[in-house]
Amino acid sequence: MASGEDSLIARYFRPLATDPGAFDLVDDAAILKALGGDIVVTTDAIVEGVHFFADDPPDTIARKALRVNLSDLAAKGAMPAGFVLTLALRVAEDTWLKPFARGLGEDASLFDCPLLGGDTVSTPGPKMISVTAFGRVAPGKMVHRSGAKPGDRVVVTGTIGDAALGLDILKGGAVAAAFANCAAAKELLVGRYRVPQPRNTLANAVRDYASAAMDVSDGLAGDLAKLCQASGVSAAIDAPSIPLSALAAKLLARGTAGMESIVSGGDDYEILCAIPDSRFEAFAQAAKLAGVAVTSIGTVIAGASAPKFLDAQGREIALPRLSYSHF
Amino acid sequence: MASGEDSLIARYFRPLATDPGAFDLVDDAAILKALGGDIVVTTDAIVEGVHFFADDPPDTIARKALRVNLSDLAAKGAMPAGFVLTLALRVAEDTWLKPFARGLGEDASLFDCPLLGGDTVSTPGPKMISVTAFGRVAPGKMVHRSGAKPGDRVVVTGTIGDAALGLDILKGGAVAAAFANCAAAKELLVGRYRVPQPRNTLANAVRDYASAAMDVSDGLAGDLAKLCQASGVSAAIDAPSIPLSALAAKLLARGTAGMESIVSGGDDYEILCAIPDSRFEAFAQAAKLAGVAVTSIGTVIAGASAPKFLDAQGREIALPRLSYSHF
Repeated sequence: MASGEDSLIARYFRPLATDPGAFDLVDDAAILKALGGDIVVTTDAIVEGVHFFADDPPDTIARKALRVNLSDLAAKGAMPAGFVLTLALRVAEDTWLKPFARGLGEDASLFDCPLLGGDTVSTPGPKMISVTAFGRVAPGKMVHRSGAKPGDRVVVTGTIGDAALGLDILKGGAVAAAFANCAAAKELLVGRYRVPQPRNTLANAVRDYASAAMDVSDGLAGDLAKLCQASGVSAAIDAPSIPLSALAAKLLARGTAGMESIVSGGDDYEILCAIPDSRFEAFAQAAKLAGVAVTSIGTVIAGASAPKFLDAQGREIALPRLSYSHF
Repeated sequence: MASGEDSLIARYFRPLATDPGAFDLVDDAAILKALGGDIVVTTDAIVEGVHFFADDPPDTIARKALRVNLSDLAAKGAMPAGFVLTLALRVAEDTWLKPFARGLGEDASLFDCPLLGGDTVSTPGPKMISVTAFGRVAPGKMVHRSGAKPGDRVVVTGTIGDAALGLDILKGGAVAAAFANCAAAKELLVGRYRVPQPRNTLANAVRDYASAAMDVSDGLAGDLAKLCQASGVSAAIDAPSIPLSALAAKLLARGTAGMESIVSGGDDYEILCAIPDSRFEAFAQAAKLAGVAVTSIGTVIAGASAPKFLDAQGREIALPRLSYSHF
């Protein structure tokens, strides 16, 4: 009696619905228990041909769909509580759904963020995965984009630019040519594009120390501009301080990639935050305990102009575009 | 500095984000205050060419996207608390976005369900709108699909089948031919397909009286089968008791539509529930106060077989398919 859609859900997604509030995905809705805190809600969708390639491994597509949302929760200082999934497919193919569900399930477990519900629909177009994720934070403690104050340090996690370089490889650009004989380098950078590393272990430190935070998804320059605008401030960034992977540093030194493409490329999914100078040491200590590298790359300053990125000689780096925009 | 995407959000969707937890849509996440109850979460997506037509009026597409979710909240006994929106578009056209946002805003206001956040992405494919809606219900009081008991009455709200007849008109089928000279009839049925009427005023009565409930989205026969399966029961339905609009009754009498297409067509977005016989009068009274017509159409019986639909002579009506399935 079960329809194809119901069997698909039962087969692939019910095993992921480990939370009692998911009711084994047999009801029309889920329950999210409040537990006394605020519920943080974030939504991000990824589309085939826009955010991922049709031939990307299905498990990486699933991981990316969930992780871009986990990254938002981390930047807001919230702990993951669960997510709902909308999956639009042309056809229901086991060869795609099986690894997709496996990757999603592994990440749901890894990040303690169970599947609560969702909708599976057919589409005549590209695959699309929309995730709405929920986090918990003590009442009033969500970290906003606004709140950065002049004098705060501008801090980022991890390294910047690798995902954009990975995307260039998948598009067969200059980076692909530079690493033509080095599969490991290509794999590493492509991996950063396909599977972001959300900094959820840093959430409590962000909540406790950051005056403002967001995740870097559309490019550091553009996202910093958004944070500054929301906070009514500007910033001066010391570009040589921006943390780069060894591969990105090599490409920059060779001239294969420019600093402008590093800071305006998207898909970093690192945390960008403003930390009051007096609290930076404590924050750095908390980050160390959380196993996340953090780097101070500049200073929040008064003003309404776009943040400046300065080179080693103190000259402003021209940025033809700040970030990715869909329209 | 604002990108096209940011301007689009500011222009069309910020006015809808009336809840303080939406932070004017300038942050990466929203806050849903718990207020001591359970949060009910439901997700439904609609795709161009599957759930709506490319040339449907944009305001009706917006209303449908929200209302199919509101219908789930109503059937679960929950009061609307807000929603997030994922909108995938090929291009950002003012002529489409303006009426879409207007329809969405009017319904958000009408149903007291503010926009909390979302994501706007580009797609090379059909338009897709995914909504995740939130409701509030007292702890443990969400009404499930399971819970129906033998002896309960099977009850539906409103009328059944009109939306499927409206879809037939849009497809140029037999119903379109039958009403070739009656624009008002066509408009009424097409309206039922394009803009569902979720029964949110009935939510408290469902919460207080129903032993099981769900909304009818994929066809009465299939959805009743799901409710029965979740409850471990069967049902006997007196087909002549199924509430029909005057137009549907006329088409049925003429033989233009058959009972099987009425009960297996989708998009009704009425509430289907099981009400203990002893509580039916009180439920009907509460429904009257809520301004929602409710009709008892049969009885829950013991057993594991699919629900039977019986005609005026007590013969079982053959149903070649129970409901719509995407795969």
